[in-house]
Amino acid sequence: MAQDKRVEQITDMEVDFAQWYTDICRKAELVEYSSVKGFTILRPYGYAIWENIQNIMDGMFKKTGHVNVAMPVLIPESLLKKEGELVNGFAPEVAWVTMGGSEKLEERLAFRPTSETMFCDHWHNVLHSYRELPMLYNQWCSVIRWEKTTRPFLRSREFWWQEGHTIHETAEEAQAETEQQLGCYADFFENVLAIPVVRGRKTEKEKFAGAEATYTVECMMKDRKSLQGATSHYFGDKFSRAYDVTFAGRDNKLQYPFQTSWGSTTRMIGAVIMTHGDNNGLVLPPKIAPIQVIVLPIAQHKAGVLENAEKLRARLEEAGLRVRMDDSDNSMGWKCAQYEMKGVPLRVECGPRDMEAGQCVLVRRNDGEKITVKLEQLEDAVREQLDIVHRMMYEKARNNMTANTYEAETVEEADRLQKEHGGFIRTKWCGALECELAMKEKTGMSSRCMPLEQSGTKGRCVCCGKECTTDIYWGISY
Amino acid sequence: MAQDKRVEQITDMEVDFAQWYTDICRKAELVEYSSVKGFTILRPYGYAIWENIQNIMDGMFKKTGHVNVAMPVLIPESLLKKEGELVNGFAPEVAWVTMGGSEKLEERLAFRPTSETMFCDHWHNVLHSYRELPMLYNQWCSVIRWEKTTRPFLRSREFWWQEGHTIHETAEEAQAETEQQLGCYADFFENVLAIPVVRGRKTEKEKFAGAEATYTVECMMKDRKSLQGATSHYFGDKFSRAYDVTFAGRDNKLQYPFQTSWGSTTRMIGAVIMTHGDNNGLVLPPKIAPIQVIVLPIAQHKAGVLENAEKLRARLEEAGLRVRMDDSDNSMGWKCAQYEMKGVPLRVECGPRDMEAGQCVLVRRNDGEKITVKLEQLEDAVREQLDIVHRMMYEKARNNMTANTYEAETVEEADRLQKEHGGFIRTKWCGALECELAMKEKTGMSSRCMPLEQSGTKGRCVCCGKECTTDIYWGISY
Repeated sequence: MAQDKRVEQITDMEVDFAQWYTDICRKAELVEYSSVKGFTILRPYGYAIWENIQNIMDGMFKKTGHVNVAMPVLIPESLLKKEGELVNGFAPEVAWVTMGGSEKLEERLAFRPTSETMFCDHWHNVLHSYRELPMLYNQWCSVIRWEKTTRPFLRSREFWWQEGHTIHETAEEAQAETEQQLGCYADFFENVLAIPVVRGRKTEKEKFAGAEATYTVECMMKDRKSLQGATSHYFGDKFSRAYDVTFAGRDNKLQYPFQTSWGSTTRMIGAVIMTHGDNNGLVLPPKIAPIQVIVLPIAQHKAGVLENAEKLRARLEEAGLRVRMDDSDNSMGWKCAQYEMKGVPLRVECGPRDMEAGQCVLVRRNDGEKITVKLEQLEDAVREQLDIVHRMMYEKARNNMTANTYEAETVEEADRLQKEHGGFIRTKWCGALECELAMKEKTGMSSRCMPLEQSGTKGRCVCCGKECTTDIYWGISY
Repeated sequence: MAQDKRVEQITDMEVDFAQWYTDICRKAELVEYSSVKGFTILRPYGYAIWENIQNIMDGMFKKTGHVNVAMPVLIPESLLKKEGELVNGFAPEVAWVTMGGSEKLEERLAFRPTSETMFCDHWHNVLHSYRELPMLYNQWCSVIRWEKTTRPFLRSREFWWQEGHTIHETAEEAQAETEQQLGCYADFFENVLAIPVVRGRKTEKEKFAGAEATYTVECMMKDRKSLQGATSHYFGDKFSRAYDVTFAGRDNKLQYPFQTSWGSTTRMIGAVIMTHGDNNGLVLPPKIAPIQVIVLPIAQHKAGVLENAEKLRARLEEAGLRVRMDDSDNSMGWKCAQYEMKGVPLRVECGPRDMEAGQCVLVRRNDGEKITVKLEQLEDAVREQLDIVHRMMYEKARNNMTANTYEAETVEEADRLQKEHGGFIRTKWCGALECELAMKEKTGMSSRCMPLEQSGTKGRCVCCGKECTTDIYWGISY
């Protein structure tokens, strides 16, 4: 089979997982490095994945009453500093604008690392009455965090994300919103990205700077490392007090609203690559694939083959699918390898013999399975196979996560399990910071989360041996 | 009629057009000022208009083969400086990042004022062969230009836009792309925003820094001032040479591709306000209105009224319209004023008597006309009226533009016509910069464009009296 160089060069994931990851990012033409150190370019194919993610997630947000806004990208230093924990958390990573044109600014401006401060400042100006609550806002934008080491999608100085920010009349409502949005992320990961998650709460050490509580969806990659998928924060009225956001309550007295924020980023694309990819390249969940179906004519020089392929393409497009037909003069081998690299979930092959038999062949990207279908059933068969692909991808990822979640009773056992198998190590934990730090120091693992589903059983803290009930997950994180 | 203060406070446009404009921006809750000088916040209602603009325009771009990407927001100074005219044009307006975390950067980074340089830098890295051409890219993002005086939507230090950037094998193809995208903007202004435009070419003085040619769609506001709607630029191979973008041509020799860029911004929302608004507030073209139809129950405490209104709302939603029903306890007068302020194109009123008669009343925002329709014809009638509203708005704006376009043969006459009537002044022009500068100095008018539709007649330059053929528009610009 003739294949061009671009398709051949990918490193095996068993040989060098990090290099395999970078190879996919580049060879599937998702991202490219730029002349600005630590900044990446989202190329058309990578951005198309992000657009699909945005469309679906934005629809979910809107269904629960959220609206989009656009806040200024620059934040005055004095405004950023009003809430001490937040600024301490982000200050080392802030990019500062100090010049406007040829003039030095009186006060330097931060490129937003996150926008709690701007939202609070806005609410301080526009909120008057409990009748206006809740305010359920979201924005899609990019933020900058001046990271030292960077990797495409996973850690980049600029990244694209959505940040939801809401204020509510009561603590209960804000808490419910925090949980609802965590559920929204879990739903999105499982039903759109085909990535199983553990829902849980972060420890005090790992929570968002300034939050009262941070909730997370944690995923496991193919190398059995952990990746934080998305987070949802409950702030109580802490920022409201710091930024003097008030409203006249039902009793006509001034009150502070209760606040949440929640975010997810282009990092999700990194999670998709490392959850589903293989040594032939990307494997995309059908719901976010820019091309869901690629139609490849076999022996396309033979009479009627191209016309037939184009007819199939048109039918699938008509059926609302994202479909392409490749009639270029590249070899069949090159084409197959190319669309495998790009993770297209389903390939439709149709040559002269298929035409005679009134059929075509569907080939699944995730397992290479071939299914012969009658042409009159094409649309239904394709839809069915895309559903099957999603389910299979999810099952496979869930099996990886389940099989690589281990119980440990001591730090030594946890360390041995992590070194032997990787994955999540589940233990009891007394809640003490010292124990968390000790685990990190002795095993390299950080706490991932205290799962929302707690067993309720009694046991002993993995570090200090104190009796306790809390279940916690540990792992090596991205 | 009971009206709350927020609805009453708008200034008459005949009294103070600028204040009227600002009042609408604030009272219709489109934007709000922020704590960052010169930066505005797009509030939910304003952002929803922008989302509708983005959706429709993005669809138009994609239909002609354009794809979206995301480029880094920061540009190294050395990269920006490679093309002299561009940097000279933008340098006074650039915001500079000089610190990352606590470290001073070795090279300062510009917050993008426009992204030609980044696109060229990327193409320098990824372009190899003529087979990869054309590359038809676009990005939706915000840019910063450090303006001295700012106004919501019209001139803001940060604004939201799309910037299209393409490269082509031949000059002819790039020229055709430039014209196609100008046509796309004209189509969008007329058929989506209901704003008539003059398509034309900018003079050397007014063209984009670094472009060989800049094309524009020019609009006329209700105060008869001119507003540049969107622009499309042809660069030849100038940037390709400056940034060393090359490809192996059909003859296997290295060549420079030919380039275009084209952009439109949140300024379009300002144009919509000043083209269609009236003393009751915003008047939105149906295609971009966040709420196309507002259903108001009359005497809603009476039996069955609310249920009926909700049924009408549900039917219109089912028909694919953006519709709301307001069953709040605010007075009917307040509600009418509120939705007029927000520019909702169509109001549906339905009370007990209408119900008995099996009908409801549609009220058009643009002219207040009431149309009684049978309930069974609701969807068709609403769709028809929305079409009519669009057409009426367009006609009215076109009449304003036509009636306020004047011919002049001398600078004195041009000056007098502008001072008496405002509007576009159409003259002959010899093409000399001195004449253009003289016009500006003596009348305050800048050249708007040389219309693509040239009369071809001979005449005398409005300034120097030299014989020439070029028709040109002058105006007072936003």
